[in-house]
Amino acid sequence: MSLQQYIRDIQDFPKTGIVFKDITPLLLSPEATRECLALLISSLGEKKIDKVVGVESRGFFFATLLAHELNAGFIPVRKPKKLPFSTISASYALEYGTDTLEIHTDAIQKGDRVLIHDDVLATGGTAKAVCELVEKLGGEIVQCNFLMELSFLNGREKLENKEIFAAMTY
Amino acid sequence: MSLQQYIRDIQDFPKTGIVFKDITPLLLSPEATRECLALLISSLGEKKIDKVVGVESRGFFFATLLAHELNAGFIPVRKPKKLPFSTISASYALEYGTDTLEIHTDAIQKGDRVLIHDDVLATGGTAKAVCELVEKLGGEIVQCNFLMELSFLNGREKLENKEIFAAMTY
Repeated sequence: MSLQQYIRDIQDFPKTGIVFKDITPLLLSPEATRECLALLISSLGEKKIDKVVGVESRGFFFATLLAHELNAGFIPVRKPKKLPFSTISASYALEYGTDTLEIHTDAIQKGDRVLIHDDVLATGGTAKAVCELVEKLGGEIVQCNFLMELSFLNGREKLENKEIFAAMTY
Repeated sequence: MSLQQYIRDIQDFPKTGIVFKDITPLLLSPEATRECLALLISSLGEKKIDKVVGVESRGFFFATLLAHELNAGFIPVRKPKKLPFSTISASYALEYGTDTLEIHTDAIQKGDRVLIHDDVLATGGTAKAVCELVEKLGGEIVQCNFLMELSFLNGREKLENKEIFAAMTY
């Protein structure tokens, strides 16, 4: 099975000139979802994971599945003011301006082995901010994984020293 | 195991006077998540499900798990302009103003047996709008399920003729 056949190109979304990779056909197929999940899991080898962090909101889809499959806790990282308990935050640059993400302060215990998941690795700004949050709470990042990597955007450069895996590469 | 011990009350969130039910302690426990998922699944008995609809964004957490467990497709229902392909939308009243949800037009085939999932059944406005979207596309709603029902808000009244299940009731 080629997972890429379940990814749909949408021209000019969310704005002109962008070709958006739509993952909803993948989510609509239980077989493709299962295969993609197995690929992400197998990339971890024998590594033990205590917590899986999913990034709002498309990162939530597979992060919950990964946590379930790995018998690990699930942690949502969210946009500001969405998490109700005490939080820490990290900001990162966008093309114009900045964006901020938050994590609950009680989500990670010192020494927890953490898997970070998001749908797409693009410029790496989001993933880098999430790594900062996890490390600030004392978590040890085992891997950052993604459904797809847009390799022409060189996101890996921002995540030096991190283990990275993507189920699909463009 | 009492699932309610994994739900944390947050006073005055998101605004003064509201006691918010925080589900992140439940998500952080793989055992509690597994038990909650099993409860939701067992409520379906032998009913066959083709698609599971999850409502942005806290509904995504268990909807992906339910879809995986039931070997069904997963469909996100999202806020306006988040879904990239062609959509239909439904609006519902809030305390002040209205809110709108969207679904992809290719998400459901006529006759699909659909499970709708969200984290909380409150006034029922959101769930009713999601039912409208699913039925407009020809889906047959087998059940609406929730992690918790705030029964004092009478959300069930808005969902007459629908089968409803909640893992926890307040």
